[in-house]
Amino acid sequence: MLGLVAAFFTTTANIPQAIKVIKTSSTKSISALTYAMLFIGMALWVAYGIIRNDIPIILANSIAGVLCGIILVMKLLPNKKEHI
Amino acid sequence: MLGLVAAFFTTTANIPQAIKVIKTSSTKSISALTYAMLFIGMALWVAYGIIRNDIPIILANSIAGVLCGIILVMKLLPNKKEHI
Repeated sequence: MLGLVAAFFTTTANIPQAIKVIKTSSTKSISALTYAMLFIGMALWVAYGIIRNDIPIILANSIAGVLCGIILVMKLLPNKKEHI
Repeated sequence: MLGLVAAFFTTTANIPQAIKVIKTSSTKSISALTYAMLFIGMALWVAYGIIRNDIPIILANSIAGVLCGIILVMKLLPNKKEHI
């Protein structure tokens, strides 16, 4: 049970951050390297889960990976309001 | 091996973000709710690791938890340059 609750928090934690960057287009304070490392790490966890046929690891890291991917793309988009 | 590499990325990913917020004091784009959820989630993973006597889970989530804690504190600090 404790692991499930922990996984829920760490899997869904980036939802507010993804919503914030989409709504505000503000990514100035965000580290692209952090989100690139998170994205790579989560992709590796998905691969690990597939090899071990571990559905929770695949599911949690796919969700969190997509969220980090959205934030990373928003960070890397060139012409955002912030730069005008 | 794959799990170790994945753990390395997701554990150390927040180092660049922690350095960036400490150097720039800029946290405007960062979601406090995201880092609060990450901090809680990682604390729960540490508790989970202690109960199961799983050193890698304890170690990885303690490191990542401290990093998220630093970023959260910087975000919640009131009088930063950004507001002047």
